[in-house]
Amino acid sequence: MSLALNQWTTRRWSVAEAVDGCVRHGLEAVGLWREKVAEQGLAESIKLVREAGLRVSSLCRGGFLTAGGLPGEDGRRAFAQALDENRRAIDEAAELTAACLVMVVGGLPGVKPGEPLPANRFSRDLAGARERVAEALAELAPYAGERGVKLALEPLHPIYCPDRAVLSTLGQALDLSLPYPEEQVGVVVDTFHVWWDPRLFEDIARAGRRIASYQVCDYLHPLPADVLLGRGMMGDGVIDFGPITRAVLAAGYTGDVEVEIFNADIWAADPDEVVATMKARYEDVVLITP
Amino acid sequence: MSLALNQWTTRRWSVAEAVDGCVRHGLEAVGLWREKVAEQGLAESIKLVREAGLRVSSLCRGGFLTAGGLPGEDGRRAFAQALDENRRAIDEAAELTAACLVMVVGGLPGVKPGEPLPANRFSRDLAGARERVAEALAELAPYAGERGVKLALEPLHPIYCPDRAVLSTLGQALDLSLPYPEEQVGVVVDTFHVWWDPRLFEDIARAGRRIASYQVCDYLHPLPADVLLGRGMMGDGVIDFGPITRAVLAAGYTGDVEVEIFNADIWAADPDEVVATMKARYEDVVLITP
Repeated sequence: MSLALNQWTTRRWSVAEAVDGCVRHGLEAVGLWREKVAEQGLAESIKLVREAGLRVSSLCRGGFLTAGGLPGEDGRRAFAQALDENRRAIDEAAELTAACLVMVVGGLPGVKPGEPLPANRFSRDLAGARERVAEALAELAPYAGERGVKLALEPLHPIYCPDRAVLSTLGQALDLSLPYPEEQVGVVVDTFHVWWDPRLFEDIARAGRRIASYQVCDYLHPLPADVLLGRGMMGDGVIDFGPITRAVLAAGYTGDVEVEIFNADIWAADPDEVVATMKARYEDVVLITP
Repeated sequence: MSLALNQWTTRRWSVAEAVDGCVRHGLEAVGLWREKVAEQGLAESIKLVREAGLRVSSLCRGGFLTAGGLPGEDGRRAFAQALDENRRAIDEAAELTAACLVMVVGGLPGVKPGEPLPANRFSRDLAGARERVAEALAELAPYAGERGVKLALEPLHPIYCPDRAVLSTLGQALDLSLPYPEEQVGVVVDTFHVWWDPRLFEDIARAGRRIASYQVCDYLHPLPADVLLGRGMMGDGVIDFGPITRAVLAAGYTGDVEVEIFNADIWAADPDEVVATMKARYEDVVLITP
């Protein structure tokens, strides 16, 4: 396993700056975000990572597949648009030769992050939303497979079930991946999202080589008012990383370990200091193997 | 099933006022809190519910059993104190002939709700904290059984794993209950805490008559800054109650359905209006059976 920077951790950095930062700090891989790649330009982004000799540990992100649960024509149009958008994301991941495309599958149809519930214009049908994800995956997995892209299903902490991801546990993501070849569909183990799960170690072992990405950051306590930003530098929160790292290794994971932190203080700090701290904490807190 | 008021929903009301409110609104059962019972006096509280002909659907709450995970003498003392406190709670539940004593098992040792992490004076050992709960239960279940009290293990939403309950899923609570007779240890199904769980319906069916309490309230979106207060009146949030109610009924549950809402606006409102709304919403949203 080797440490990688997910570029959202140093959110101020463009792709060019993140690539340069990785090289200066001796990191071998970078996780890119589509928004940042679009700003830099896809061709230019590819050129930058290749010339720097970096691996692209992931492209973030595809997903948001559940809007098809809205009734009637609105739902059908939203579902078709989501599939188109995900095919574009898969194409980009292929061109970047990203190790995986991270899939944040979406919440209840019509529920928006941070916004009040739109009266009568959202769906409470959680089981249906989960079926929409499975349907979308049946469309997208072969498309990804043809292009050599692995879709990485990311279970999100249940706090994000209404608005971001109806995939709430590693076991659930894993079950959804099983109908497909493991080079087409895998799962993300992100410590923030799964640390609390009583079935975590059993499901990491069961996932085995389906683990497409191991992402680390800490779970802060108390959470800030905006729960999206409750992710902290490793060691600043409540997660015991050692057992999770050992389980992921024992499952056969040999990929990069991305640090992905959404945190207002970290985004405000000097990105070079953030990367230096990240490297130190990775050694001290995450990479605890017997 | 019949509707019951958990008195924390009308937090301003004393035991006497809550009993009076239940009678005036035609409710047959009330869920009491130990703090409120202590203020009213235990003997007086017993007299009030008996004379009113009410059932006590639950006593809230025992638990907070994990402090024994602190190192050395501090841990041993904290564990002994927690057991003593829970024996008192069991005695009170017996005297009130409460249908169950709700157990909120506690979070990571040394982590306090709403307070910053105490540097080097808390434990990240989640697996150990869960073992402490099992150990405490082995002490308390026979004590409860001798007094005719059922301990109701309440899984809390994973957002509360650091500070309030290391029991995070219904399946986990159920597994912990299985070594004991079902009249000694059961589980709580609280919609707020479990609605997101992909294994919910499977685990409700598996729980069967282990379900000691069915509590309802909605999950608000977005959550307020203090996530403890993210509970809403049924119909105001994202939960689809019908399927959960039907599953709990199909599992064989015949007890009372408590409405337990932690919400600043509801606590500020006229308690009689809150109870009237609660009754209407129960009929409209919760009791949706084919």
